[in-house]
Amino acid sequence: MINAVGRDIPEEVMAATGRDIFRGTYVNDNKEYTKAAPTVRAVCDPKRSKMVASIREAIEKCGLKDGSTVSFHHHFREGDYIVNMVMTEIHEMGLKDITVCASSLGKAHDAIVPFIEDGTITSIYSSGVRGKIGEAISNGKLKNIAVMYSHGGRVRAIEEGRIHIDAAFIGAPTADEYGNLRANGGKSNCGVLSYAYADAQYADKVVAITDTLVPFPNIPASISMVNVDYVCVVDEIGNPNKIATGAAKPTTDLRKLLMAQYCTDFVVAAPYYKDGFVYQTGVGGASIASTIYLAEKMRKDNIHMSLGLGGIATPMVRLMEEGLIGKLVDTQDFDLGAVESIQAHPDRHIEITGSEYANPMNKGAYVNKLDYVILAALEVDTHFNCNVITDSTGLITGAQGGHPDTAAGAKCTIVISPLVQGRSPAVCTDVTTVTTPGETVDVVITDYGIAVNPARPDLMEAAKNCGAPLYTIEELRDIAYSIVGEPRKIKFGEKVVGIVEARDGTIIDVVRQMQEYVFDD
Amino acid sequence: MINAVGRDIPEEVMAATGRDIFRGTYVNDNKEYTKAAPTVRAVCDPKRSKMVASIREAIEKCGLKDGSTVSFHHHFREGDYIVNMVMTEIHEMGLKDITVCASSLGKAHDAIVPFIEDGTITSIYSSGVRGKIGEAISNGKLKNIAVMYSHGGRVRAIEEGRIHIDAAFIGAPTADEYGNLRANGGKSNCGVLSYAYADAQYADKVVAITDTLVPFPNIPASISMVNVDYVCVVDEIGNPNKIATGAAKPTTDLRKLLMAQYCTDFVVAAPYYKDGFVYQTGVGGASIASTIYLAEKMRKDNIHMSLGLGGIATPMVRLMEEGLIGKLVDTQDFDLGAVESIQAHPDRHIEITGSEYANPMNKGAYVNKLDYVILAALEVDTHFNCNVITDSTGLITGAQGGHPDTAAGAKCTIVISPLVQGRSPAVCTDVTTVTTPGETVDVVITDYGIAVNPARPDLMEAAKNCGAPLYTIEELRDIAYSIVGEPRKIKFGEKVVGIVEARDGTIIDVVRQMQEYVFDD
Repeated sequence: MINAVGRDIPEEVMAATGRDIFRGTYVNDNKEYTKAAPTVRAVCDPKRSKMVASIREAIEKCGLKDGSTVSFHHHFREGDYIVNMVMTEIHEMGLKDITVCASSLGKAHDAIVPFIEDGTITSIYSSGVRGKIGEAISNGKLKNIAVMYSHGGRVRAIEEGRIHIDAAFIGAPTADEYGNLRANGGKSNCGVLSYAYADAQYADKVVAITDTLVPFPNIPASISMVNVDYVCVVDEIGNPNKIATGAAKPTTDLRKLLMAQYCTDFVVAAPYYKDGFVYQTGVGGASIASTIYLAEKMRKDNIHMSLGLGGIATPMVRLMEEGLIGKLVDTQDFDLGAVESIQAHPDRHIEITGSEYANPMNKGAYVNKLDYVILAALEVDTHFNCNVITDSTGLITGAQGGHPDTAAGAKCTIVISPLVQGRSPAVCTDVTTVTTPGETVDVVITDYGIAVNPARPDLMEAAKNCGAPLYTIEELRDIAYSIVGEPRKIKFGEKVVGIVEARDGTIIDVVRQMQEYVFDD
Repeated sequence: MINAVGRDIPEEVMAATGRDIFRGTYVNDNKEYTKAAPTVRAVCDPKRSKMVASIREAIEKCGLKDGSTVSFHHHFREGDYIVNMVMTEIHEMGLKDITVCASSLGKAHDAIVPFIEDGTITSIYSSGVRGKIGEAISNGKLKNIAVMYSHGGRVRAIEEGRIHIDAAFIGAPTADEYGNLRANGGKSNCGVLSYAYADAQYADKVVAITDTLVPFPNIPASISMVNVDYVCVVDEIGNPNKIATGAAKPTTDLRKLLMAQYCTDFVVAAPYYKDGFVYQTGVGGASIASTIYLAEKMRKDNIHMSLGLGGIATPMVRLMEEGLIGKLVDTQDFDLGAVESIQAHPDRHIEITGSEYANPMNKGAYVNKLDYVILAALEVDTHFNCNVITDSTGLITGAQGGHPDTAAGAKCTIVISPLVQGRSPAVCTDVTTVTTPGETVDVVITDYGIAVNPARPDLMEAAKNCGAPLYTIEELRDIAYSIVGEPRKIKFGEKVVGIVEARDGTIIDVVRQMQEYVFDD
């Protein structure tokens, strides 16, 4: 069936995954549903301890068995040890058909590929599947169809009951023996535990894993003891150097600086640039450069951002400290500056849950309040659809993150991409994989100029006045094709290896198995 | 049927309320159950507003009808305007058979008695029903049997699905237009919104009512926008003078000072008095005096409390500021000192939810970690059962609050009561109404001396060494009876007007309709 972004979703994939096709970003507004609920056990005897001696003991006490679903968060990013530790134990116990429900998976988890190959893991839900796991899925090695959801979509899936987590394994920089978990104060600080909050609320069993046990009560806690069954101490939960890196150096790439300039000039020209605006940006070089340019404008114009949100890095922290940003709400810390800030400014730099950030089915998330979001994309097409998941060969290599969530929420969604990435055109007729529907993308900014979505004539004035070369999206594509040529259509195998879930759980696109590359002609 | 505290619970009351008899405080430890879940509506269209023009509009949008259940919190204490405003509107709309599910009801709500009499309100769940509502229930004016639960039992009832809230009306000192609610920063600060948290999580519809609308985002929030449907601004949500009173003056009542001395001497002699102990006390004169005495001992012995918890008043705040207490976790603010402290010390004086405080069926509440709790009681009997709900005539006049919760959790539960209250013996053979089972009460402290529960021989040593006159509980009763005589048995009507719920939702006792007083002889 053809969905709302024009993709033909095979009916057998709809049947196999129990999902409808994507029918538009806002069709579920005001939809009524009953939330899911975990099956839990009471701890009313004050003498009972939650401490377990090993991850093995925790798994056994959770009663995991063939077919169980386990969950993980990705706040330790490339430094995470938790997923591998837990999955190795599950593998050694001989469990099969395990579903891994992660907020994201990356290169830190290459070690679990053999567990995919031997049937320990047969289903994966993740925002993204970078590294060798992405390759394994793209090569058809996972038994069931992988599901790639956005950060908001993941919480929605858990809160709706689409995914039921049997046991959540939550790595915590610090924990007390009763399960109050904080993201700071240990050896592997990660700043926040936002994405683990839903797991703690909705999993039947919750296991805290820490390398730094601290005295009770470990508060204010990101995750409360009232949702934690077991606490396990291990030697190391992660590699601090890969969890929070030093602040990214400002880019010197002229293409990125040019796009940053165009982006800021457009933001300032657009009608939402006024005192109190709400803003989100990423941590790529162009995004950071545009934040710096924007700050210069804000100082000059005496305009302040009331709120910055999302994943936080040092440039946004500095603007808050300067008084240019009122508050930051934080779902992920990208560097040490952000981790330090959330400890230093509890009144202004505030951890929020994944649901508060981006869940499309709660009673209103922060993304709904965005004036601007600045996003990157691997590809954007003439329908303004974006791809952030597959590379130009079709290999799964990226993650949705909050891309579709913020795009849907923001009054003005700006996608930045150099017109040509490597030898591929970033603006094209049809993206390889749709992750973010064009109806939620308002402006595309490239190093050659900008294009405004015709659905947003109200933004044309700003685009004309901002000083950047203004094109139609088709013109930008044509320039890209004139530089590197029109890309040949990729040949995939027939087998669908993954679906891209829209925020609401419907299928916005499928990812097919990679084939040995064969030229058409 | 005879329950675990020896009360005969009529089978028709068990049938009418769908409840088992109380079978012991810890029988449900490790019990498995599936949590309840609300039926909600998604707000995924960023353009939609949550503002409503009036309480009437909010009620209409919530779809309330005959038989609906509405809920309220009691953080505004004697200064609350919310209950009366909402119930008056519901009454004017002509709705009938409404269930009021309040965390507590008091004299501030005398105005709703006519709505009980005319069938607008036919069921009441509350920790207590002081004032004219208590009289109305005791006099048989409420159609259905009233349910009196503890603070922890209330959250348990909501989380278990025993009570389903159709609409929660949450008074908030400050709110933004998207429903982020704080207990501070407005005209009627109440410090925390702990008891409203479960309502926000589990009610189908949530209405925020404020008199101080502040810019978005109103954070860190006690209640998050993700659980709030509507925001309504009114002129006044409460009377600040009755919400947070000035700090209570230290008592000069010699009986109370004597009990305070006995209490502290026992605490210090008992085995839990060591660095890092966890402690809770009330706000009565004797409790505050004993806190002051205890602080003197702690300074002298260089012993520190790691945590103080529960409802907070100025004396505990001062000890935290002095460094004698590490942290305070707070579910209710009794005076301005507490309200000011929670704003001044976000790292050490921390709001917790009602579930975190006392829910017996979550995965572990703060009460489970108490070393000592100091409680008051209207009556305590020779089985160590306590009554905090009915006076000596059987009139409903008090509230369970956290009494049974903290008693069940603490390693050492100390009940303070003058041996004779007015002309009634406070230590008696059988309390009028059992609210807290004797198995959870360890020591009784009176102005004549102390008694230790024989079930706690491990505490006898401390009792012998502490310097207070040591009696058996029967001896204390006999002294009391020798002063004021043995009370004659109260004659009640046959009709059961209320049940006292144990923490786990079973029936620990019933309250019968008052009768014109007739002497037996």
